[in-house]
Amino acid sequence: MISQKISSPTLLLDSKKCKTNIKKMLNKAQTNNISLRPHFKTHQSADVAKWYRELGITKAAVSSMKMAEYFVKHNWNDLLLAFPFNPHEAQKANELNNKIDLNILLVSKEVIDILEQTLDKPINVFVEIDTGYQRTGIDAEEIDTIAKLLEAIKQSEKLIFKGFQIHNGHTYLKGKKEIEEIHLKSLQLLKKLREHFIEEYPNLVVSLGDTPACSITNNFEGIDEIRPGNFVFYDLVQWQTGSCDTSDIAVALAAPVVFKNAKKNTVTVHGGAIHLSKDFYVNQENDKVFGLPVELNEDSWGEPIKGGKVISVSQEHGTIELPTKWMSKFEIGDFIGILPAHSCLATQLQAHLLTTEGELFEVMPK
Amino acid sequence: MISQKISSPTLLLDSKKCKTNIKKMLNKAQTNNISLRPHFKTHQSADVAKWYRELGITKAAVSSMKMAEYFVKHNWNDLLLAFPFNPHEAQKANELNNKIDLNILLVSKEVIDILEQTLDKPINVFVEIDTGYQRTGIDAEEIDTIAKLLEAIKQSEKLIFKGFQIHNGHTYLKGKKEIEEIHLKSLQLLKKLREHFIEEYPNLVVSLGDTPACSITNNFEGIDEIRPGNFVFYDLVQWQTGSCDTSDIAVALAAPVVFKNAKKNTVTVHGGAIHLSKDFYVNQENDKVFGLPVELNEDSWGEPIKGGKVISVSQEHGTIELPTKWMSKFEIGDFIGILPAHSCLATQLQAHLLTTEGELFEVMPK
Repeated sequence: MISQKISSPTLLLDSKKCKTNIKKMLNKAQTNNISLRPHFKTHQSADVAKWYRELGITKAAVSSMKMAEYFVKHNWNDLLLAFPFNPHEAQKANELNNKIDLNILLVSKEVIDILEQTLDKPINVFVEIDTGYQRTGIDAEEIDTIAKLLEAIKQSEKLIFKGFQIHNGHTYLKGKKEIEEIHLKSLQLLKKLREHFIEEYPNLVVSLGDTPACSITNNFEGIDEIRPGNFVFYDLVQWQTGSCDTSDIAVALAAPVVFKNAKKNTVTVHGGAIHLSKDFYVNQENDKVFGLPVELNEDSWGEPIKGGKVISVSQEHGTIELPTKWMSKFEIGDFIGILPAHSCLATQLQAHLLTTEGELFEVMPK
Repeated sequence: MISQKISSPTLLLDSKKCKTNIKKMLNKAQTNNISLRPHFKTHQSADVAKWYRELGITKAAVSSMKMAEYFVKHNWNDLLLAFPFNPHEAQKANELNNKIDLNILLVSKEVIDILEQTLDKPINVFVEIDTGYQRTGIDAEEIDTIAKLLEAIKQSEKLIFKGFQIHNGHTYLKGKKEIEEIHLKSLQLLKKLREHFIEEYPNLVVSLGDTPACSITNNFEGIDEIRPGNFVFYDLVQWQTGSCDTSDIAVALAAPVVFKNAKKNTVTVHGGAIHLSKDFYVNQENDKVFGLPVELNEDSWGEPIKGGKVISVSQEHGTIELPTKWMSKFEIGDFIGILPAHSCLATQLQAHLLTTEGELFEVMPK
C-alpha cells in the first residue's frame, strides 16, 4: 500500500497519469502544428518539469518572478513570465534576462521607462490581450490602444515585441459547449488582430493558454503556441468543465482518518484548507464540494467513492460524507485519498509530492 | 513609506496592534482568573511567539505535530496538540513527550493501544468535547461515552487525563448576540460535565477556545483555560462577527498594482489565492469579499477604503473594486494594503512577515 510510506497528510502524484496527460497535450500540439509552452504554475516542481524536458519541451510559462528564478536555477532557459509586469521587479528581470531568454508580459506603457533604465540588454515582450475573461489585458477590439503600446515598445531599444498572450480563464467552470463557444469567439477576435498587425510584425506569436479549451478543442486556427498548465494534474474543477475524466486526475491527498461520526455518516481527516486550499466546485445538487474521496490501493487509487464528498474544510480538518456501507471500511488511522477541487492551489501548499514510484518530488518553497 | 522596503507581495504585521491584541486577551484572562494558552496556528511564527513569552505566557496550543515540532525547536515546552490524535504520529509524539510537557487530544479509544506500545513515559491527555460545533469531539451530553473513554485512559499506564477541550467554531460568522448564546449554551453543558466528573478528577481542566467568544464575553464560569488563536491578528471574518474593529486587524497584504481598468473601476494587484487564500466573507449586499483595501502609510495603514473590496482572487491575481475617486490615486507599481478575510490562512502562505518596525519574522516552513 502506498499509504504505508507516510504518517501525515501527503499529496500523492500518479506518475503514469501525469506523464500521459503531458504526452496527450504534446501530441495535440504537434498534430495541430503549434508549439507547447506548458505553464508550470500547477506543479511548481523542478522534478515534474523534467518529464517535460524528456519529451523535448524546452520552454515554459511561470506566474511570478520567484517561480521564474526557481526554474532558472533548475536550468530552464526560455521562460515567459505570464503575469503583468511589476515595475519593482525590473532589476530581477534584468538579472534573469542576462542569463536566459526571458519573456515578460506588458499590459500598459507605464513600466517601459523603468525597463529602459534597468535592462542591460533587450528583453522579449508579449502583450496581454483580453478576449473576454476581463481579468487583465487590453480588450482585443481596442486596436488603437494596442497599436500605441506596440509603437512604444518599438521605440524602445530594450524591448522586442514577440506577440500576443491570451488567457481565457472564463472557460473554467463551464461545460464543453460553452468552452467551444468562448474559444471560437477568442479565435475570431485574434484573427482580426493578427490580420491588422501581421504586416508590421510578420513573426508575431499568438500564445493562448487555458486547460479547458486546449483539452477540448482541436481548432487552433491562428494560434502559434498553447500555454495550458492545469492539464498536467487536472482536478475536479476541470472534470466539471468536461476537460478530463476523474481517472485523468494525477494527484490525490492521502489523509488519515482521525474521527468518525456514525450518526452523520462522516469521517474527519487530517487534511484541510492548508492541504487542499479552500477552493471548491458546486455540484448538481448545489453543494459545495472541496474534494472527492477515493480508496488508496497498492500503488495508486481508484475512482471516486460514489456518494462521497468532502463537505467542509477548516485549517487542518477535512470532513468527508460517506455512504453508510463505506463508513465501516475506514477506521481511525486509515488513509483516504482525496481528489482536489483545485490541483494548482493544493500543490502550492505542499513541500513535496510523493510519486506512485515512491520518489519525493520537490515543490518550490514558499 | 513601509512599501519602499519591498518589491513583491508581502504580509505586513503591525507590531503595535498585535501586541495590544495579546495584552488585551491576557488582561481578560487574568481579570477572570483563568489561564491563557494561546493557539499558535494563526501566526505560526517563533518570532511572534516571543511577544507572548515576554508577557509571561509559557504554554500554547498547536494544530499539527509539525507545528509542535517547530515550536519545541524554539524552546516552547508546554504544548497542547489540539487536533484529534493521528496514530501514525505516535513515535513523533513519544520523541516530543520525552523532551517537553506534551498534551495530546483524544476523541476515541482506538489510538490508546498504539500510544501504550510506543510511549516511553506517560503523556497528558485532553478529551475533545463537542458542545455544538459538530466537527470533531464527543457530544457533551453523551456522558456514558465520555466516562468509558476516561476509564480507558485511567486503565492505561501511559496516559494522564488532564481535562476537556472544546472549540466552538460555530461562533465564526455569527453576530455578537448569537455568539453569546452559543457560548452560554456551551458553558451550561460543560457545567454538567464538570459536576459529573469533578469528584473523580478534582484537577480536571476545562479548556475552551474560540476567538469570537473569548473576545466578546466576560462570562467564563466553569472555564479554567482559554485557547483562542486568531485574536493575535484578527481579520475580516472576526470583524464580521463583532469580535474586533477593523483597526484591530494586525496584518495586511501589501500588493503592487499591475493593471488598471478604468471602465470597471478595478485595479488588479499581484496578490491572489496564494497570498490571501480563497477564503472570503459575504457582506450585507451578498457579495463575496476576499479582502478590504487600505492605504499604506509611513509605518502602517489606514482604515478600509470606503466602498472598496477585493472582488476576486485567482492564483496570483487579486482584483479590487475601488470608488472612482480612488482610481486615480493608485498607479501601476503602487502598493495597496489588503486586510485579509482569514488571517490564519493568509499567514500560513507566507515565508515571512514584515513588521512595521522593519523586521522580517519567520513563518513556519511548509
